Amino acid sequence: MKSKLINFILGRNLKSDDLKNEKYNIFWGLPILSSDAISSVAYAGEEILWILIGVVGLASYKYMFYAALCIVFLMFLLVFSYRQTIDTYPNGGGSYIVAKDNLGTIPGLIAGSALSIDYTLTVAVSTCAGTAAITSAIPSLLKYKVPITVILIIFMTLGNLRGVKESSRLFGIPTYLFILSVAFMIVTGIVKVHFFGASSQALYPIPQATGDISIILFLRAFASGCAALTGIEAVSNGIPSFKEPSQKNAKIVLMLLGIVVLFIFGGLSYLTTLYHAVPNSSNTLISQIATQIFGHSFMYYIIQCTTAIILIMAANTAFAGFPLLLALISKDGFAPRQFSKRGHRLSFSNGIIFLCSMACILVIIFHAETHLLIPLYAVGVFISFTLSQTGMFCRWVKQKSPYWRHKAFVNGLGALVTFATVLIIGITKFHLGAWIIFILIPFLVFIMITIKKHYTAVATQLKLDINQRPKVINFEEQKRYAIVPIDTLNKSFLKALNYARTISNNIIVFHISVDKEATEKLMKKWEEYNIGIPLVIKESPYRSVIHPLVKFIKSEEYVAGPNDTVTVVIPQFVVSKWWGNILHNQTSLFIKGMLLKERNIAIVTVPYIIEEE
Amino acid sequence: MKSKLINFILGRNLKSDDLKNEKYNIFWGLPILSSDAISSVAYAGEEILWILIGVVGLASYKYMFYAALCIVFLMFLLVFSYRQTIDTYPNGGGSYIVAKDNLGTIPGLIAGSALSIDYTLTVAVSTCAGTAAITSAIPSLLKYKVPITVILIIFMTLGNLRGVKESSRLFGIPTYLFILSVAFMIVTGIVKVHFFGASSQALYPIPQATGDISIILFLRAFASGCAALTGIEAVSNGIPSFKEPSQKNAKIVLMLLGIVVLFIFGGLSYLTTLYHAVPNSSNTLISQIATQIFGHSFMYYIIQCTTAIILIMAANTAFAGFPLLLALISKDGFAPRQFSKRGHRLSFSNGIIFLCSMACILVIIFHAETHLLIPLYAVGVFISFTLSQTGMFCRWVKQKSPYWRHKAFVNGLGALVTFATVLIIGITKFHLGAWIIFILIPFLVFIMITIKKHYTAVATQLKLDINQRPKVINFEEQKRYAIVPIDTLNKSFLKALNYARTISNNIIVFHISVDKEATEKLMKKWEEYNIGIPLVIKESPYRSVIHPLVKFIKSEEYVAGPNDTVTVVIPQFVVSKWWGNILHNQTSLFIKGMLLKERNIAIVTVPYIIEEE
Repeated sequence: MKSKLINFILGRNLKSDDLKNEKYNIFWGLPILSSDAISSVAYAGEEILWILIGVVGLASYKYMFYAALCIVFLMFLLVFSYRQTIDTYPNGGGSYIVAKDNLGTIPGLIAGSALSIDYTLTVAVSTCAGTAAITSAIPSLLKYKVPITVILIIFMTLGNLRGVKESSRLFGIPTYLFILSVAFMIVTGIVKVHFFGASSQALYPIPQATGDISIILFLRAFASGCAALTGIEAVSNGIPSFKEPSQKNAKIVLMLLGIVVLFIFGGLSYLTTLYHAVPNSSNTLISQIATQIFGHSFMYYIIQCTTAIILIMAANTAFAGFPLLLALISKDGFAPRQFSKRGHRLSFSNGIIFLCSMACILVIIFHAETHLLIPLYAVGVFISFTLSQTGMFCRWVKQKSPYWRHKAFVNGLGALVTFATVLIIGITKFHLGAWIIFILIPFLVFIMITIKKHYTAVATQLKLDINQRPKVINFEEQKRYAIVPIDTLNKSFLKALNYARTISNNIIVFHISVDKEATEKLMKKWEEYNIGIPLVIKESPYRSVIHPLVKFIKSEEYVAGPNDTVTVVIPQFVVSKWWGNILHNQTSLFIKGMLLKERNIAIVTVPYIIEEE
Repeated sequence: MKSKLINFILGRNLKSDDLKNEKYNIFWGLPILSSDAISSVAYAGEEILWILIGVVGLASYKYMFYAALCIVFLMFLLVFSYRQTIDTYPNGGGSYIVAKDNLGTIPGLIAGSALSIDYTLTVAVSTCAGTAAITSAIPSLLKYKVPITVILIIFMTLGNLRGVKESSRLFGIPTYLFILSVAFMIVTGIVKVHFFGASSQALYPIPQATGDISIILFLRAFASGCAALTGIEAVSNGIPSFKEPSQKNAKIVLMLLGIVVLFIFGGLSYLTTLYHAVPNSSNTLISQIATQIFGHSFMYYIIQCTTAIILIMAANTAFAGFPLLLALISKDGFAPRQFSKRGHRLSFSNGIIFLCSMACILVIIFHAETHLLIPLYAVGVFISFTLSQTGMFCRWVKQKSPYWRHKAFVNGLGALVTFATVLIIGITKFHLGAWIIFILIPFLVFIMITIKKHYTAVATQLKLDINQRPKVINFEEQKRYAIVPIDTLNKSFLKALNYARTISNNIIVFHISVDKEATEKLMKKWEEYNIGIPLVIKESPYRSVIHPLVKFIKSEEYVAGPNDTVTVVIPQFVVSKWWGNILHNQTSLFIKGMLLKERNIAIVTVPYIIEEE
């Protein structure tokens, strides 16, 4: 029943061999790995104008176009740089790997944690934005903002748990719808003005200029617009998810992504200049332009609707990228190992569920208020860009392979520009919350190093020398000590005792007396039962059920020496109802947990299965 | 370290023999078991006046006095009735026991759940009231209402976990302070008017009468004042917590409680009449009277302060009563067994923690708003009174012991009056939330019956016939099949293998192949190691680590027959750091959980302890 329900929701289990069928081709790889990058185009231009328009007035449109050009230039720098990375790292070359490989472990971990933080924020921010779109339309839902956002996140999580390919179909379509409808708007808008001479009257008054452009102002505008570049990492990190030839496919997708962003971002920026849209807290730039081009017609609602959906879908890039990143870190031993294992449906289910939980916690803590989360956003991704670019730069300089000067120039320039962006974002948003990131990254790096240390220490201690042979055991002469704890004389105990008698001929039945009455009842019954196995009874004045047993085993009173292994045979009855375990076995669980800490004790659990009506 | 901290907070562990030293004498038993009853006096008179004053104006004070007289009469009816109960039930005679014993299981469970609900509400309501007193004084704390209430509850929980006697001292003193300061106020107030002829001008105008008194109105007023009687049950339920002679001590405490309530309730009602205090949402009756008597002097603040504290302390009666009640229900098998076990410090710690959790959940759900919880309150306790009185009535009628007519009259009258009160409270407050109680009680009864059924079914199946002897086992000829799962060849595995070789000479090492590369590496190493024990490898295309093992054991391929017991020896390494277990052993835990469901498999855990730096 339960597993049928799970299969219905998550799809059937998948064999490991199915993995190659589960990979992306170019057509589905593009939307699933690029929805983050493409969706940020929806607000990047607006962010730039917000900075400029209060100061330079109408001239903003000119400088906005320059800033957009710079960003597109930076994007192609990144695209070409990441194409070099894809060539160099066929198994996935995210910042984590590139930085670790070329700059060392610590820079790698910094890049890894910066990216992890950003992925988590992407999920939280974009689903909150999606909810905001829904609640603007239906204000009565406003008080259910948090539950709606959490449900959206859980819905995405379920979609992603269904496995790689199915989720790409599920989430790929809206990206294409957005691209198509925006492309249609760009073409219509340009045609309308240039061929039909439509008026392009601004909907809102353009503020008067109060000052002149400055380098600082322009850089701030540029930095704000850089939000458009947050999703590019995902493609080069996702190479292993592509169908063969995966490197080639990834490079094509990356280039297509660049072209799509160029077209949409450039197109939208041009339309903004053409129609003089004015940033405004109640009406987005896209909405203004769509109103001017289509009026409040059907097409306007299509634009608004696909924009809202793609903003939510941006979270999906994180769901594709984060589990892969975590699996890489986990394989290196810096994160718990279970993150590197694929689930029943071949997705990295633990990573997906972890991302879901973290995002939900963020949403609940920040009450689904986007504006509280935004300042934390985008710092992380530019830190990881900087480290990745610097890593590639060092690689070329060290290796001096053919054309190394050209390649090093591309990456070096990228490193400088992204580093400048980190500084600008970090400084301007520091007091708004970006400081949290600068505390969180060292903390995460510390945790990851501690985990690695732990795994290394354990592995060292477990390492077996090939010359270390098993003990010489003369089976016939083997001493076998067994203790069977008893609480009441029942069938479950008898089964455990029967088992103990098959493995040992030195058995003691041990009772811990907490309640005198019960103990006397047991003693009487044991005498009646009379099977010639000694019953040892120890008082437990503090009602502890474990210390008297351990004390007895270690005491002189007991026959086994300090180097003999003692087998403790614990009867445990097993009930089929899930809530049954709340009612039983608390004590035996506790005993087992405590005995595990003792060196020479082996713990046997003999299950007795209770049939239920 | 950890246990030292716990000892510091909760006090040292206590031996079972300490139980008799931990019990209450009369002096400490009175405040700890009566703070609920005494504290409700602080608002009972006010509740009566609220109902009356809008209708009958000045005449209210007369009828209030009549209602107070009726309530005092009802209280002494209950006191005498419960003295009869204490005589009859020396081991604690709460409504649960009395109803179960004389009316049957279902009425007993109804009384038990009604009381449990009321105890939980007492904690939530009284701590919320205490928080309200704090936040009225310091309004800037208003937004931290919920955390403050939760902290208050946790503080009480810790106090109660310290053990019976220490908590009575901790919580007993404020009750005495309240009694003394209110007594001082009553005496001063009366002396001032009668001997010094002080004016007793009302602080607020008394509303004009708009109608005449009616039976219905008077009954509603009476029912509202019955809140004063909510804590009486606690004493007769708590007999086992008294020092010997416990019955006599409990009866004395019950009588003292009656006298204290009579004096304070009667005195406050008389003062209200004398000083014409008018109920008012911003100034309590006690505060008005204290103002008139003392002005805003030091004594006024003493009165206000002890009132606030005793309102919070009322929660403590529930902490004393609820765990005892739950322990009784649990001993009868209607609640999980762990509620009947005393903790390290001899209190019923599980019950205390459970009460704390439920109250915190209520506080969080209802946002610490007292007025949302009040309508749910007091229905439960009167349902349990009715059942208890009816039970005692039936007992006398059935047994016909000496003076049975007199005794039956007392309890019969009590049953009628309390039942009438249930009807009045239930009907007037039904739409305000009392309906929740009428849904919740049947639900709790259903759960308790289901638990009992489960325990009975398990006990029946486990019951051992004394003639059912252990199996005849010829130790030397015993077949012993063992399987040791392997993931990597390391010291932990070797220890498990060594152990398996001491108990078996039919060993198979079993590997589940999820990752081909790792499997090949293992096969190569196993060949090198070459110790003559067969290694069986099974592919697991769906990456399950358990099904292939169970399938193999049941298959024809395996040597053991379907009736032979197979021992699965699982290596488990044990790390000392608490977070270490997140990083390891997930798989072995999972395997153990699944294997438990198989009938002929015994599971051995061989711990390998990892030393850490």
